[in-house]
Amino acid sequence: MTAPLGPTDAEGAINEAAKRYSNWGRWGEDDVLGTLNFLDEAKRREGAALVRRGASFSLSQRFDMNGPQKGWRRRTNPVHTMLATGTDAALGSQGFPHGIGGADDVIAMPLQCSTQWDGLGHIFDHGKAWNGRDAAKTVTSDGDLVTGIEHMAPYVAGRGVLLDVGRVIGDERGELPDGFAITEEHLTATAEAHGVAVGRGDIVVVRTGRLARSRREGWGDYAGGDSPGLSFTTAGWLHTSEIAAIATDTWGFEVRPNEFEGAFQPLHQVVIPNMGLLIGEMWDPDALADDCAHDGVYEFWLTAAPLPITGAVGSPVNPVAVK
Amino acid sequence: MTAPLGPTDAEGAINEAAKRYSNWGRWGEDDVLGTLNFLDEAKRREGAALVRRGASFSLSQRFDMNGPQKGWRRRTNPVHTMLATGTDAALGSQGFPHGIGGADDVIAMPLQCSTQWDGLGHIFDHGKAWNGRDAAKTVTSDGDLVTGIEHMAPYVAGRGVLLDVGRVIGDERGELPDGFAITEEHLTATAEAHGVAVGRGDIVVVRTGRLARSRREGWGDYAGGDSPGLSFTTAGWLHTSEIAAIATDTWGFEVRPNEFEGAFQPLHQVVIPNMGLLIGEMWDPDALADDCAHDGVYEFWLTAAPLPITGAVGSPVNPVAVK
Amino acid sequence: MTAPLGPTDAEGAINEAAKRYSNWGRWGEDDVLGTLNFLDEAKRREGAALVRRGASFSLSQRFDMNGPQKGWRRRTNPVHTMLATGTDAALGSQGFPHGIGGADDVIAMPLQCSTQWDGLGHIFDHGKAWNGRDAAKTVTSDGDLVTGIEHMAPYVAGRGVLLDVGRVIGDERGELPDGFAITEEHLTATAEAHGVAVGRGDIVVVRTGRLARSRREGWGDYAGGDSPGLSFTTAGWLHTSEIAAIATDTWGFEVRPNEFEGAFQPLHQVVIPNMGLLIGEMWDPDALADDCAHDGVYEFWLTAAPLPITGAVGSPVNPVAVK
Amino acid sequence: MTAPLGPTDAEGAINEAAKRYSNWGRWGEDDVLGTLNFLDEAKRREGAALVRRGASFSLSQRFDMNGPQKGWRRRTNPVHTMLATGTDAALGSQGFPHGIGGADDVIAMPLQCSTQWDGLGHIFDHGKAWNGRDAAKTVTSDGDLVTGIEHMAPYVAGRGVLLDVGRVIGDERGELPDGFAITEEHLTATAEAHGVAVGRGDIVVVRTGRLARSRREGWGDYAGGDSPGLSFTTAGWLHTSEIAAIATDTWGFEVRPNEFEGAFQPLHQVVIPNMGLLIGEMWDPDALADDCAHDGVYEFWLTAAPLPITGAVGSPVNPVAVK
Repeated sequence: MTAPLGPTDAEGAINEAAKRYSNWGRWGEDDVLGTLNFLDEAKRREGAALVRRGASFSLSQRFDMNGPQKGWRRRTNPVHTMLATGTDAALGSQGFPHGIGGADDVIAMPLQCSTQWDGLGHIFDHGKAWNGRDAAKTVTSDGDLVTGIEHMAPYVAGRGVLLDVGRVIGDERGELPDGFAITEEHLTATAEAHGVAVGRGDIVVVRTGRLARSRREGWGDYAGGDSPGLSFTTAGWLHTSEIAAIATDTWGFEVRPNEFEGAFQPLHQVVIPNMGLLIGEMWDPDALADDCAHDGVYEFWLTAAPLPITGAVGSPVNPVAVK
Repeated sequence: MTAPLGPTDAEGAINEAAKRYSNWGRWGEDDVLGTLNFLDEAKRREGAALVRRGASFSLSQRFDMNGPQKGWRRRTNPVHTMLATGTDAALGSQGFPHGIGGADDVIAMPLQCSTQWDGLGHIFDHGKAWNGRDAAKTVTSDGDLVTGIEHMAPYVAGRGVLLDVGRVIGDERGELPDGFAITEEHLTATAEAHGVAVGRGDIVVVRTGRLARSRREGWGDYAGGDSPGLSFTTAGWLHTSEIAAIATDTWGFEVRPNEFEGAFQPLHQVVIPNMGLLIGEMWDPDALADDCAHDGVYEFWLTAAPLPITGAVGSPVNPVAVK
Repeated sequence: MTAPLGPTDAEGAINEAAKRYSNWGRWGEDDVLGTLNFLDEAKRREGAALVRRGASFSLSQRFDMNGPQKGWRRRTNPVHTMLATGTDAALGSQGFPHGIGGADDVIAMPLQCSTQWDGLGHIFDHGKAWNGRDAAKTVTSDGDLVTGIEHMAPYVAGRGVLLDVGRVIGDERGELPDGFAITEEHLTATAEAHGVAVGRGDIVVVRTGRLARSRREGWGDYAGGDSPGLSFTTAGWLHTSEIAAIATDTWGFEVRPNEFEGAFQPLHQVVIPNMGLLIGEMWDPDALADDCAHDGVYEFWLTAAPLPITGAVGSPVNPVAVK
Repeated sequence: MTAPLGPTDAEGAINEAAKRYSNWGRWGEDDVLGTLNFLDEAKRREGAALVRRGASFSLSQRFDMNGPQKGWRRRTNPVHTMLATGTDAALGSQGFPHGIGGADDVIAMPLQCSTQWDGLGHIFDHGKAWNGRDAAKTVTSDGDLVTGIEHMAPYVAGRGVLLDVGRVIGDERGELPDGFAITEEHLTATAEAHGVAVGRGDIVVVRTGRLARSRREGWGDYAGGDSPGLSFTTAGWLHTSEIAAIATDTWGFEVRPNEFEGAFQPLHQVVIPNMGLLIGEMWDPDALADDCAHDGVYEFWLTAAPLPITGAVGSPVNPVAVK
């Protein structure tokens, strides 16, 4: 476990990283895609060429009441209810002719409740949203009026890379402990162990083993509690690598407790509003990771299409990897 | 516009088609995937090879209050609300340290409100669900206990084919009128005009132009009203072709009014519970269709991953096509 | 129909009324009840003495999908769904012992969708909430942090008075036309015709007949459209009379279109944030009104208890009158 | 703590009580009110005469995310979100003229999540609903088609009686322990200690102190866990007394664990579908109870009006007592 970055000037360190790794203006002042701009057509051709066997994997957790949410920040688990059922249909009281019956359903859920993308309007830095916009005018109670996740709908498909840090760096179960801060060195060592390169436009999936632990031990504080995750110090790597997006099997992407005392998600503060990085959380890479460990291939075609919910600052997603 | 099939023995015709085109037992008595079984790894390799340019397209309508739903069957448009906003963050009252602020959101929506898959538990025939199961024990108020859409989560990625029947058969705008029943002949002629073949394991997207018309004229009765769509008589083609799935740009897939007087969605009754066919509705193929008309290529890689909502009989989806 | 107040200085007129009829500070700077302070224990004793027959009446519309909402301002009709049903119970699959079965349900609804109270945090005037508070710090996306409707939970019970303006001033059906501005003179004439006095601490229910018309003709634009209602000029009477609350059978309490060209709900702007008046909308006084017309008694005991939804700026309510 | 009724013939005992205390047919075969029929106009006159001081009390818990629900049976705490806020209004971006601003809100909640009435369609006995109806045809996924709680909307106002069993029988804090079964003797002794009579048409509020304990110690298993409550053996008293309704400060009205091993809410099974008794749960009688202890008056006017949610099997409620 990496030592905390200390009680030193947290806000100064955050501000410095925010400035150093900013992509404001890089794609014009009207940009609504952030680092997703790195994922271009060439990258998609490269990704599609990775489909060798045709095997497909979902990287999504389930959406139901048996999830990890406990109500923190009014985040509940999804409530799925039926408008009509087969039980009704079998009873013959639905009023349809000729023996047809139907079932319909409804869901109510926070967009950050299970496997998700954080939209660019999800985090602000000193009142500024992505690309230097005024947060107050960007995300109101009418939603994200500028960078809503609907703008990303066509684009999140390309080359995926799994970095199974849990298996390479972690314990015999392939798991990292809570509070473990994954550094650039860990990421690089993992990629080397896998024999895979990470570069511009990639969608990187980092497996910490945190979800596997919850699957074994129960949710506990999986959502909102302590966790392994990316170190604040990876901000530079996240910027320099020019990846399009990154996702983890944890609720909050970065290590918890945070490395600065008294800070709250400082890496989010740097990478979402300043870098414009697309972040995925609560992904389930475990089936894919088993396959990768078996065949030694850690790159694949990945489609992780957010629902185009107008003005949303996040979206549930079922990422599908194909090898 | 095709003539109605008449007031003759509708229930008899439905029952005969249901029996003739049944796939019950074809994939074992425990099957939960239906025709998605046709989409195998070889088909995925074939589909991935269609990525030539790397251009990607979303085939999803937006999810928001400006949708077509009017409350029929308690189907509303999605209600998206914010748990926290940039306006709050800018005010500095969120209680987070060091200048970080955040926005979160919530959605409540019917799973059949916008671009969607119908799950296998969505329709019943005389009290029977897919594979001959008792509807009463398959879909209760706890959801679809057997064939919930979560089972399909990893698999809906393969070769997609667009059949732009609107452009080939329709008017100068590329649109078919309400009540137009698309027959096997129309489908075949369209495929021939496109120079594309449809076969086992494909995901077929049929464009009628109905959505384009609503975009021009306003929603009107787009959701639940009259519409072009597949003729009841295509049941045989849907069965013989062994496609994995089919989707349209209309609310209800089949032609409305239905061809039998007094019937309600008879093609659904045949193809979902009996054939096990995966049906998509309210897709938006228009941007893709423009591109296909331009380059003459009507086949592509398609990922249309349902959210794994446990026990759901449908799912919102953002289908992404890559050419 | 009263003539519009004209295109003259609307904002000036609103500001003047806001200042003249302000109750800011009247009940101390911590006040969260506004004019509900007028409803004291003596008034409740007076109200209880009005229970002569023991007949009770609900003044609430139903809460269901067949309501008037069409989605304006994301106001939908309530969506009520079942978590368990008698159909399931009868099937015997609920897993309970000894023959017990159960049904449970869920609702999703805007708090302003049907019969309701407007809380004190519902309307602001130039960034100010009730009692001169900063609106930005009073009602955030966490809700009304100060004047949430939960504070009123114990108090809304007292003497009710029905002013059936529709019957006294309106057409043979007892209905006023859309755009009809009810003035102080109309209110006074109605009270005189009824032989009832209105005074300090009363809860006044004004019947326009607008709901009765919708019941006959269909909802049309009942929610959000044109309507009879209180004239802007009644602000003085509302202030001087020292009533505790007032409710109407219309969606918006005041006359629509508003009397100032280009204004939006100017009477709300005066009476909620400045006067602190509790306003009810979409009430259904018709059954009670019929009874009052029959026995000539227009005063009664009235309980109209909002649900104590923490931080809410409104609440559904089932007002119950007893005569 | 009363001894369990034993592992003896639970189902037999339940069936015998169900038969013995049945009110099926008592108010005609179309009845939708059950024991609420006992609450007549004379009783309302009697109740109104109890308003002596004019002091009013809410008997409702709050409705918010800080409630006791943990997701059992998909029962969550209420999720209240804002559609518009004062923060937005102060920013001036709402688009309204002349300085008016507004806030609106939305709620999603189970109808059984906080202070509530159980409707007559909430519980079934061997497939039978209240008055002997077929449960399968009474409560479908369209809701309670016959005995929906909307039918009770005008009537739940009358004489209330508080039986503070916690104070009379319980410990020095006025609290009963979990598993304490309140018997007819306890109820009678409490009424005698209070100097109050309980009779036909009354609404009885039983205070166990369970809520007060949760307020002190945290929710724990308040919702769904062990609790003091009415003994199964009170069924006779509930029947003979001809009360209109009864409510407790616990989640489940009857003692938990239930007195029969392996049973689930057997008193519910007897009193709701067979007796037609209106039951309230999760009420908060504590402020009222303090007042009653102070002035020695345990009877009052009580209005506890359910929201007329069409087809609901329960309703949130803010009961208001006036003394």
